[in-house]
Amino acid sequence: MSANGNLLVGQSGGCTAVINASLAGVVQKALYDGRVGEIFGMRHGIEGLLLSDLVDLRMEPEDMWRRLRRTPSAALGSGRYKLQEEDIGRIVARLRALDIRYFIYIGGNDSADTAHRVSEAARREGYELHAVAVPKTIDNDLPYTDHCPGYGSIARFVSTVTQEVGLDTEAMRRIDPVKIVEVMGRDAGWVAASAVLGKQRDTDAPHLIYVPERPLSRERFLNDIKECHQRHGYVVAVVTETVRDESGGSIARTDPVFSHDPFGHRYLTGAASYLADLVARELGLRARFDKPGTIQRMSMAMASEVDLQEAYEVGAHAVRVALNGEDDKMVTIERISNDPYTSRPGLVPLVEIANRQKLLPDEYINADGNHVTSTYLEYALPLIGGEAVTYSHLRGKRPSGVAPSDERKRPALCPRPSGP
Amino acid sequence: MSANGNLLVGQSGGCTAVINASLAGVVQKALYDGRVGEIFGMRHGIEGLLLSDLVDLRMEPEDMWRRLRRTPSAALGSGRYKLQEEDIGRIVARLRALDIRYFIYIGGNDSADTAHRVSEAARREGYELHAVAVPKTIDNDLPYTDHCPGYGSIARFVSTVTQEVGLDTEAMRRIDPVKIVEVMGRDAGWVAASAVLGKQRDTDAPHLIYVPERPLSRERFLNDIKECHQRHGYVVAVVTETVRDESGGSIARTDPVFSHDPFGHRYLTGAASYLADLVARELGLRARFDKPGTIQRMSMAMASEVDLQEAYEVGAHAVRVALNGEDDKMVTIERISNDPYTSRPGLVPLVEIANRQKLLPDEYINADGNHVTSTYLEYALPLIGGEAVTYSHLRGKRPSGVAPSDERKRPALCPRPSGP
Repeated sequence: MSANGNLLVGQSGGCTAVINASLAGVVQKALYDGRVGEIFGMRHGIEGLLLSDLVDLRMEPEDMWRRLRRTPSAALGSGRYKLQEEDIGRIVARLRALDIRYFIYIGGNDSADTAHRVSEAARREGYELHAVAVPKTIDNDLPYTDHCPGYGSIARFVSTVTQEVGLDTEAMRRIDPVKIVEVMGRDAGWVAASAVLGKQRDTDAPHLIYVPERPLSRERFLNDIKECHQRHGYVVAVVTETVRDESGGSIARTDPVFSHDPFGHRYLTGAASYLADLVARELGLRARFDKPGTIQRMSMAMASEVDLQEAYEVGAHAVRVALNGEDDKMVTIERISNDPYTSRPGLVPLVEIANRQKLLPDEYINADGNHVTSTYLEYALPLIGGEAVTYSHLRGKRPSGVAPSDERKRPALCPRPSGP
Repeated sequence: MSANGNLLVGQSGGCTAVINASLAGVVQKALYDGRVGEIFGMRHGIEGLLLSDLVDLRMEPEDMWRRLRRTPSAALGSGRYKLQEEDIGRIVARLRALDIRYFIYIGGNDSADTAHRVSEAARREGYELHAVAVPKTIDNDLPYTDHCPGYGSIARFVSTVTQEVGLDTEAMRRIDPVKIVEVMGRDAGWVAASAVLGKQRDTDAPHLIYVPERPLSRERFLNDIKECHQRHGYVVAVVTETVRDESGGSIARTDPVFSHDPFGHRYLTGAASYLADLVARELGLRARFDKPGTIQRMSMAMASEVDLQEAYEVGAHAVRVALNGEDDKMVTIERISNDPYTSRPGLVPLVEIANRQKLLPDEYINADGNHVTSTYLEYALPLIGGEAVTYSHLRGKRPSGVAPSDERKRPALCPRPSGP
């Protein structure tokens, strides 16, 4: 047992493909540094400390940490418990009893708030604690960091499947010409924006991107769909699950027809389901929707190598700075260069982070509010770790090759035989 | 130009991750065989022939075929056009005008019907034609073939994401303990069944699998969910989009509340959306749903290598047997051995295939009608090409390690420090 005290780590908020890589970074750094005594994990975030639901991470085989670097979800269990005033005193007592001197909390905005309040409480009670938050959120909405671990991987997933869904919808356009893809994102459109990363040509999916930063009128949406359908013969629109209408409410929920059943229960319709239905009713075009849900944030097969690596590094850095005396801080990622892409970890006071959101900046959203700009591309492309999946051999062939030519021209003649 | 005539190939029905591998098999076999003259592709299936919307596949660079072997969707464009009586005569005239002697049609049940009718019509008019169908459907519902190209890949996707969604739901179970995953499958539960392929222990997802072969009562469904939630603390249920209730109708549609809006328009709710809502209303448990939609049949990152290889081979075999004089047949896959897995192509008369479906046999569904049996596992595991993704290092650790222990026990003590 070291004289420097023990370390406590937890995971909080929505899971990601790389939050376990951050946990591995924390634990391996602590294991290899002689100054750390015990290494405890909280089950389901801060509740694990309150309920004494802890695990001894020194008991795990070494091999576990290598494997966790490529295991999605939160191995300690996650949570969204909001600290109550009466919890604060108990928490410091628990930390004291366990001789915890390093408190590492992996999560998003709410988790930063929790870590900040734990740090404050310890300070108030004169208990020496080094509380450091590790950023994690597919929403990519934390301020003061170039981006958040988790975002590069969901961006790789969403951009890849958008190209694949695009190929499918194009091939099937005589049957189901309109496809709405609903992706995650609390108040910010970062995930929806990433759908663009494999797009090479105007004709490629996604044709439309709707983000919560721009209110969407139903009329405008229907006009967009109609115009894209006329131009390309098919449409792929990507929408954030929380996209709003002009009133500021969710576009799905504010329709009085679908918001509640006759018993007054709220009906769980989603944006894409509602919008696909709207297209079918109003434009007479068959429309379908894909809602990858949890799948989009968990896919290891489509995870970003850059993201996996950075997630590990921010975890390790949190332990490094906590051991060096930092407290009440969050680790950030600072971008050094784009080509080749390099970054380094930084630090920001937790009070600057807690409960603040970084939305998509105006320069990343096009003037019409239905797509993203090339400035966004420069920002996001390095984060997915390697080239975007484009299937461009197929796309580039149009209209002369195997890929669909403009069917509205419908050539009356079979192409001339070229002979062997 | 060869004396033997030209070849015409088309793709039809829903897209898959490997239908282009079959196209590559057809074209490369034809390119390398001196007996084939021109090689034409129909755009959007048989409609391409009717509308003279054809492409000359000899004009593609050789490299295209290698790349198409790993490109999802249908590069020629797909369709679901049902041949009308008046089309038949025109089709034979078109085939004659283009000197088509080999007609290769890649698709499912309906496409087999189309190929059969084209073959019959040519025979009736005394025009020598060799029509061979190539099986393709993620639904895996064609009879006389061990399985269908496309199935192994969607099974790999569904089994992988079910494990990932399971880890996520387990970690988040204090917030959203119930997850419904809706997967494809017309009248058969083959795709839903494949969710089991990564399951190692009783506690792992999927806990429940519902297929259209077994009617599902709402009461029974709610009891299953409640019981699983009590046992595991979370539930992942996988349902086929077409799962039926006792009346034989879709479980979602037959609820009078949700089937139509007040104007009489049918509302596009799905099975999972409806069932998640039912759980929330009736059991008071927060429930969410994932509906990967098109994404599940298009994922190249999760495609099965066995499937990609077999899809190519059935395409090549179709050309081989057509050149050898076969007509009015579909290529099948015959399983030779399970360990190691080996297969070979076979042939079946089209008249045996057209418009018939192979449902999940009784011995693959458990007695309760809410899961699959180990007999199914033996059948399906070889098809996903390599081991299922299980993340078993995490699962196997329970309850002593990092992975969640039984939280209802909530140990009052922190585990004993083991010391470095």
